[in-house]
Amino acid sequence: MSEVSGALLFDVFGTLVDWRTGVARELERFFTPRGLVRDWDAVARAWRARYQPAMEEIRSGRRPFVKLDLLHAENLRQVAGEFDLGPLDAAAIATLTLAWHRLDPWPDVAAGLARLRRRFILAPLSNGNIRLMVDLARHGGLVWDAVLGAEVAQAYKPMPEAYLRSIACLDLPPAACTMVAAHNDDLRAAAALGLRTAFVPRPGEYGPGHDRDLAPTGNWDLVVRDLLDLADRLGC
Amino acid sequence: MSEVSGALLFDVFGTLVDWRTGVARELERFFTPRGLVRDWDAVARAWRARYQPAMEEIRSGRRPFVKLDLLHAENLRQVAGEFDLGPLDAAAIATLTLAWHRLDPWPDVAAGLARLRRRFILAPLSNGNIRLMVDLARHGGLVWDAVLGAEVAQAYKPMPEAYLRSIACLDLPPAACTMVAAHNDDLRAAAALGLRTAFVPRPGEYGPGHDRDLAPTGNWDLVVRDLLDLADRLGC
Repeated sequence: MSEVSGALLFDVFGTLVDWRTGVARELERFFTPRGLVRDWDAVARAWRARYQPAMEEIRSGRRPFVKLDLLHAENLRQVAGEFDLGPLDAAAIATLTLAWHRLDPWPDVAAGLARLRRRFILAPLSNGNIRLMVDLARHGGLVWDAVLGAEVAQAYKPMPEAYLRSIACLDLPPAACTMVAAHNDDLRAAAALGLRTAFVPRPGEYGPGHDRDLAPTGNWDLVVRDLLDLADRLGC
Repeated sequence: MSEVSGALLFDVFGTLVDWRTGVARELERFFTPRGLVRDWDAVARAWRARYQPAMEEIRSGRRPFVKLDLLHAENLRQVAGEFDLGPLDAAAIATLTLAWHRLDPWPDVAAGLARLRRRFILAPLSNGNIRLMVDLARHGGLVWDAVLGAEVAQAYKPMPEAYLRSIACLDLPPAACTMVAAHNDDLRAAAALGLRTAFVPRPGEYGPGHDRDLAPTGNWDLVVRDLLDLADRLGC
């Protein structure tokens, strides 16, 4: 493999994988045989809506670091109440939490990463835990050089430590690392630390009513259509 | 990819890559144009001999954790004195330390890992740091699911934390993890924690005078010829 030109670090939920339809599909698969009918897309979005507040407990220091899998499990109990999904035992919670491990990548992702890896070190820099990243990669046929992010850093994005401890693992200066994300906030935090930035809009992330992150709101180094376009732009 | 049957965790130096001839080659490549003639194989072995004592400073608590790259650089300064390699500036030390990032895998490794990955999560559980593992994998065409080991655990093998924190990243119990190594001591430490064990002898590791770890000295779960044999035995 030729000399590396630096690292590309990827946000995962929304940027690489379609969490909304994936989680909705897994919920439907679980509850339909149990006779429950709900708007599973709405349940998936409600589950995801509890993601930032749960991490904020940790970012604020009110709670020590725990893995995202645990936050997903806790949040599901609350969503189950909200949508009247009935009592869920520990086994059901564990099974459903694994829905987040089986999300499909957007269509350009596997091929795009394979091209980008020719010249760049690739790693997820996600708030998802290591096993969650491993399972998503195996499910979607993605190849990483290393799995970085929240669990390695013991800090959730957009805390500076999440980015800085991840790139320290690669022995690269911030300017040799590009954060790739569909979310302007993620890129803003990375840019403030000296990382380069690439914005990939994913207008399908939140479904028909999607109204956020449709366009770049910062002066990002690259704005691309998808990962194949990113590979073109980077000469991979 | 089909359901995983657990994880295989690999020792790297000696077990997967041939550090002795690789380091000797890189030393010769660096010093020959500078007019130095030495027994580069002996220099490589002397450099490696300082590996355990350097880590012991950290395992004992006398020194906080630092990456193996730094220990390699420090040890090289001592070896340079021992073999009269002349004054080495910081750039030379940095270049030579990267010799450890360009070691060739034994001939069975890339194909063996590719087969084993069909059914198992694969990760290095090495004392090498993350970037070192990334570079070795890219150099040798190896594919990992995650990079675990000393830097993630902030502890050097055979400390229990090195193994336990690595497998905690995979959310697997020890009995679902197999440590694969050419060194009986590594397997002994892993077995004491409940991991399964696979011994792969690498009689070429130390060269013609190689007299250690030629045979299993414990009741390991598997004793195999190489990684292709391991794949056969595990039905991959």
